[in-house]
Amino acid sequence: MYEKKGKKTGKPAPKLTALAELGEFGLIDRLTKNISIHNPATLKGIGDDAAVIDPGNKLVLVSTDLLVEGIHFDMTYTPLKHLGYKSVVVNVSDIAAMNGVPGQITISMAISSRFPAEALDEIYEGIKLACQKYRVDLVGGDTSSSTIGLMISATILGEADKDEIVYRNGAKPGDLLCVTGDLGSAYVGLLLLEREKKVFQINPGMQPELAGFDYQVGRILKPEARADFRAVLQEIDMKPTSMIDISDGLASETLHLCKQSDVGCKIYENKIPIDAYTREVAIDFNIIPTVAALSGGEDYELLFTIPQNDYEKVKDVAGISVIGHMTAPGTGRFLVTPEGKESKLTAQGWDSCKS
Amino acid sequence: MYEKKGKKTGKPAPKLTALAELGEFGLIDRLTKNISIHNPATLKGIGDDAAVIDPGNKLVLVSTDLLVEGIHFDMTYTPLKHLGYKSVVVNVSDIAAMNGVPGQITISMAISSRFPAEALDEIYEGIKLACQKYRVDLVGGDTSSSTIGLMISATILGEADKDEIVYRNGAKPGDLLCVTGDLGSAYVGLLLLEREKKVFQINPGMQPELAGFDYQVGRILKPEARADFRAVLQEIDMKPTSMIDISDGLASETLHLCKQSDVGCKIYENKIPIDAYTREVAIDFNIIPTVAALSGGEDYELLFTIPQNDYEKVKDVAGISVIGHMTAPGTGRFLVTPEGKESKLTAQGWDSCKS
Repeated sequence: MYEKKGKKTGKPAPKLTALAELGEFGLIDRLTKNISIHNPATLKGIGDDAAVIDPGNKLVLVSTDLLVEGIHFDMTYTPLKHLGYKSVVVNVSDIAAMNGVPGQITISMAISSRFPAEALDEIYEGIKLACQKYRVDLVGGDTSSSTIGLMISATILGEADKDEIVYRNGAKPGDLLCVTGDLGSAYVGLLLLEREKKVFQINPGMQPELAGFDYQVGRILKPEARADFRAVLQEIDMKPTSMIDISDGLASETLHLCKQSDVGCKIYENKIPIDAYTREVAIDFNIIPTVAALSGGEDYELLFTIPQNDYEKVKDVAGISVIGHMTAPGTGRFLVTPEGKESKLTAQGWDSCKS
Repeated sequence: MYEKKGKKTGKPAPKLTALAELGEFGLIDRLTKNISIHNPATLKGIGDDAAVIDPGNKLVLVSTDLLVEGIHFDMTYTPLKHLGYKSVVVNVSDIAAMNGVPGQITISMAISSRFPAEALDEIYEGIKLACQKYRVDLVGGDTSSSTIGLMISATILGEADKDEIVYRNGAKPGDLLCVTGDLGSAYVGLLLLEREKKVFQINPGMQPELAGFDYQVGRILKPEARADFRAVLQEIDMKPTSMIDISDGLASETLHLCKQSDVGCKIYENKIPIDAYTREVAIDFNIIPTVAALSGGEDYELLFTIPQNDYEKVKDVAGISVIGHMTAPGTGRFLVTPEGKESKLTAQGWDSCKS
């Protein structure tokens, strides 16, 4: 909880501002006072019934994501600033997955009155930081009190030329399946945080032992979107036939591409890029590293398909791994082990709903 | 609660579908299977990382609104279908307040697993109905489980020509302040529902007594947006100098126009349009009818200013009331009683946050 923070540091707790003191409009003024505009297309941002955007001759992309306390984040170990940052990043990632350029975002929050205004300031600090990094304009939002916890809903607009956009449904049999970066580290980061939370619950005097796990913990708490990948594609002069971002895990996203493109696939287990240390830590947790990559999710890398002819273009690019290929419709979707054994690819789906 | 519905009717309760049975993707398929597209600009709707929109040579408007259980609606008397309907309408209203044409909407929901899939179907039925009525395309969303109640966040896109858009900041001293329709009925509807809720809590066998109050109850449970007003303006060849929709109450919205346009104002109490029966019921509740109009909110009528020269254009239009005028900056913002007494206009602000 936010209120405990001052106590933990040993410093005197700063005077906090109750939301009721500010009122709705005071709060909005406070949160939005330093919002800068990065895109010439943003004609009017916050402050009217709607933002006004001039996309010129491009197409407009829209995507939305929801972060809910207790489902997508745990307040005991999620810094509020990181939460704000992540709420922007997960949306930027969706625009990147369409090969578009992010432009504007709206953020709505429902917040319990147990949070002081300073807590919201922190969330907004993270939002502004991410907006600055990804050159996204915060153009609107809605802030409501809540009797029921914290929720952040963001909707992003992006733009792209008609012939640049990459959908999920363009993969063809024979296309190579590729992924950026490495997978599974965000999930291992989550396991580490959950472990330290349990330790803390048993002995609140214990300091969390997360030293040395910066990469894994960073991947889950402060993910980055692959907004840089558009430039990579331009440089190697390649357009994927289909693309999706990895938020739910490699298995789930691959099945999305297969379903929407009506193709089968084979993923080769030993081709899946996993950070060496993440692999070790996963094994310490009795988790098969491949499973962390397939079902962990939250890595926000990009999964895409390319024609076989384009193999030469990607084979020497650092940070792109070819992990399999698409097959004819109806031939099934499989994970192939190093021994050549094929097992059916399954998505874990919406675990949170089942618990 | 949804589960009680079958019992109340006396019919056998229908078999309900747990969300866990469906999983996330099954749920999305179920909710989005009959979404039709109304706008040629909507190139790609639900089903990819982002929707794709081609606004042509128009500008894009974006607005967002949040409905939170316990704050914006009370599940004991809000039918889920109406809730879905309203979540679209409040956003359409924002686009109408810019003098734009609504085009696309994204809807995100956080839902407790206490709701069966059939409850979500009902919400979506209302969403689809409103989308059909206002010719809006549902193009995306995010659905998450929630440990903490029901929340609906919607973001709408609209379009307009550059010279059509009406902002909040264009009012000039001397401009006439006008409002569409009548005000205060939604608030009186809410009072009626709250009264019946209390009766029901004391004696669950009592049937709610809402007969004869259709207009007031309809205004709060199933509001409509003034998307028709754009055509009225075109017909009388008039463009307001500023405009806003009335969601928080006449006082609050007038102060927004004054603040953003840097002007003062005078509103004449006896010019405020209030339905005759609403007036009676308000008095029965010991509420001054003017207060219901000033602070009640949720009427979703449009408040706008026009140059004095345009008075001839509006004076005979049914459903437009001239309620005051704007004054020089720094001269104050006042409500003028029939006796000519001036009192300072104050917004009630964010009551929900203070309770």
